[in-house]
This record gives sequence, structure tokens and C-alpha cells, in this order.
Amino acid sequence: MRLKVYADRMSQPSRAVVLFCKSNGIDIEEVKIDLSKRQHLTPEFREINPMKQVPAIVDGRFKLFESHAIMIYLASVFPGVADHWYPADVFKRAKIHSVLDWHHSNLRHGAHTYVLNSTLGPALGQSLNPNAAAEAEKVLLASLAKIESVWLKGNGRFLLGSSQPSIADLSLVCEIMQLEVVDKKDHDRILGPHKRVLKWIDDTKNATAPHFDEVHSILLKVKEKLKKKHPDEAKNNIQSSRKTSLHSKM
Amino acid sequence: MRLKVYADRMSQPSRAVVLFCKSNGIDIEEVKIDLSKRQHLTPEFREINPMKQVPAIVDGRFKLFESHAIMIYLASVFPGVADHWYPADVFKRAKIHSVLDWHHSNLRHGAHTYVLNSTLGPALGQSLNPNAAAEAEKVLLASLAKIESVWLKGNGRFLLGSSQPSIADLSLVCEIMQLEVVDKKDHDRILGPHKRVLKWIDDTKNATAPHFDEVHSILLKVKEKLKKKHPDEAKNNIQSSRKTSLHSKM
Repeated sequence: MRLKVYADRMSQPSRAVVLFCKSNGIDIEEVKIDLSKRQHLTPEFREINPMKQVPAIVDGRFKLFESHAIMIYLASVFPGVADHWYPADVFKRAKIHSVLDWHHSNLRHGAHTYVLNSTLGPALGQSLNPNAAAEAEKVLLASLAKIESVWLKGNGRFLLGSSQPSIADLSLVCEIMQLEVVDKKDHDRILGPHKRVLKWIDDTKNATAPHFDEVHSILLKVKEKLKKKHPDEAKNNIQSSRKTSLHSKM
Repeated sequence: MRLKVYADRMSQPSRAVVLFCKSNGIDIEEVKIDLSKRQHLTPEFREINPMKQVPAIVDGRFKLFESHAIMIYLASVFPGVADHWYPADVFKRAKIHSVLDWHHSNLRHGAHTYVLNSTLGPALGQSLNPNAAAEAEKVLLASLAKIESVWLKGNGRFLLGSSQPSIADLSLVCEIMQLEVVDKKDHDRILGPHKRVLKWIDDTKNATAPHFDEVHSILLKVKEKLKKKHPDEAKNNIQSSRKTSLHSKM
């Protein structure tokens, strides 16, 4: 029986899990749970994940949710997964847990809250909130700075000075990629100064090609959709776009 | 060389790590990093944890931070730690990871933000914020409900239907215990309806006696201190205490 992955590729952690599976040749049945259609709120999906969030997996009789837990589980039960994704070495593994735990209340909290309140909220039934977006941006910028000064320290191309990616690289990079859907000026203002982060995203993309682009292609489509809906807005800077159209970006 | 644990017992994750060590007979040198004295911001502590947060450990040449990662590491390297704290079974372990990941953006986010903005902020150099406290309370209440309906489902006394506690029980219970410092009426309003959570806290306390009370005794001291500073306020309900004294609870 194939592993079932319940996912919406518009969700960062969903993309991380799907990308992990594809990069490791794990044969999956990807079941789309469309968040914009509230499919995560149905009684059927609640049987899969009572927390009503994607991603979730069903592996035979075993159900699991939370993307980090899922990737750790898959790395542990699929013998074909190379060690670098989730090293057996207790010290390396501990450091990966540390990155993943840090991620929740820092990069994820900042990026997710920023994108939701600046751009994607209406598509998910929530209003945009410029104040919340501004607060989240501070957390996001501080997190990007910490990634450069702490997690990407050393000579390796990946987190923790590694020469090959781990599940932590996938999780954090997929989070940052969500910024592709925000206004270009905002995207460049936030990410532009973080050259090392940009190089690391490229390295992760190359290490997981061609799956990386395929899994992220949905973001480009959404971006185009936003541009068509609001062609003038795309030319404005963050201040004016926030002021003029808080509820209509998608 | 003894394991060094850098902690402030006013911090929930610090207590979880110290309680884990004491419950497992791990001999530690507990180094107090007093958050109210900004000791986590010193250059010396930044060498231990560049994220400037407690807890953190130093085990010989190995440094680690993030409480979940620390407990997993300790359960993995200290042979005396019983299996139930962090089971070797891949399915049980995966479920514990799932609880711990869920914890970050739900119970921890709600409880931590609530206590900080309703009570402890000023002691840490931050203003109280009743609106943020009210928003956080919603997350906290939803999280407590999910603990009862999802994580405590089944016949076991502990999370995931287990008959013995895991590191997830320690982490989540230590978080909830932080509510001991808030106004009694608020404490009872929030926790009172969650009978199963209250029983689980008691079960965790009994399973880790006498260390549980010892590690949490600091909260009672802080509570007394708050009462002495504001004897009238303790009699008021949440609304009036929020309105009358936003910056003076500690």
C-alpha cells in the first residue's frame, strides 16, 4: 500500500514533506486537501488529522501529522533515505532537532504570519492586517539574520555546516519560498540583503532538482493570478499597497 | 565532567529540562541564568547559546539549546533513562515528535504569550498588553481543549494513552504550570473546566515526585511576591486588574 500524503502545496510544510518524498524516491499517493476550499475542515479529513491541518500522512494503519515529525518518521522507516537527511549520529541529530524546534517560533512564525497578513489571508477567509504583518516582518528579519549568523555559519553549503541537505534545510527553505507570492518590492526588501540565505536557497534547489521547481510551481501560478487581479498594485511599494487594498489581493 | 544546564526556573522549558534530569538521576550542574537580570544577554552566555535563550546545555565539548532537542539528546546518550521517556519504537517516537511539534505553535504560544502579557511582562522589561493577552487566551483555551480531546484520548494516564510519562508530558505540563503565577480567578477560569488536564497534571506531578514540587517551588514564591505587592488586585477579576494596573504586577 502506497504512503498517502495529504497536502496542499500552497502550505509550506506540505511542500517540505512532498519534496522530501520525491527527493528520496518514496512512492506516494498525494491527496490534495484544498485549504482555500476548506477541505481541511471536513469530517473526513478530521479522521486523518483531528487538528485539521496539512500535511498529514497515512502509512498503512499508522496516521501522523506535523511536518517535522513526518519527515523524521519517513527517514526512519524508509531504508533508502540517505543518512544526511536525518543523521544517525546523535550529535548531528540533536543539532537538527535544535534547528527544527527553533524554526517553529522564529522563522515559521514570522514568515507564515507575514505572508498571511500581507497577501494570502483573504484566500483563506481571513482579513489582511498590516499591523500584524509589520510585527511579523520584524520576527522574520531577525530570523533570517540568525540563519546567516548561526545556522549557516561554517564552510558547508547547508545548515549546520553540512555539505549535504537535511530535513531542516527542506523545512526552512520551503518556508522562505512562501515569500514568492508577496509583492516583489516587499520580497526584495526582505530577502535582498540576505545574500547567504539566497545562496543557500539556490543550493537546496540544486540539490533537490528537478523536484524543487515542480513542487514550488504552484507559487508562480498564484503570483501570476495576483498580478492579473491587481496589475497596478504590483507597481506600488508596501506602504501604498497596504493602504489601498487590504482585502483584495487574492 | 558533569552536564551543565543553563536555566532559569521561571522559564517553562528550563523547568522541563531540569525536571527530566532530576527524574532520571542525571547529575547536573545547574547554572542559573537570571532572565530578570538580563543574564541571557551577556556575551558569556551568547557563547553558550547565540539565540540568547534558556535552557541550554554543555556536555563536554557539545553545546545544545531548545528544550525538546535537549531532552531527546539526554534520553539518547544517558543509558539510565527508561524507554518510556522517549521510546525507541518508531511509531511511539513519531507520535511524541508530533505532540512536541504541535506544542510550539499551540499550547506554548498561547500560554507563554498569555502569561507574559497578563502578568510577567514587566519583570522581563516588557509592558503588559491586555489585547495580546486576550488573543493568546483564545489559543490557550483551544489548545487545552485539544489536549483533552486528542492527546489525552484513551485509557492511559499520560499523553498518547501511555501508562508512563514521556518528555512530551514534561514539556506540556511545565508550560501549563506557568499559569500558577496569574491571578487566581484567571487561573481557575482557564483551567477549571479542563478536568482531564488537571488530573493529568496531578498524575505527572506524582510520577516525578518529589522533584516536581521542588522544581516548581519558584512559582509559588513569585505568586506570593505578586500578592504582597498588589493585595487588592488579587481580589479583582481579570477585567478590573487589567484595567487598573497594567505595568505593576511584578
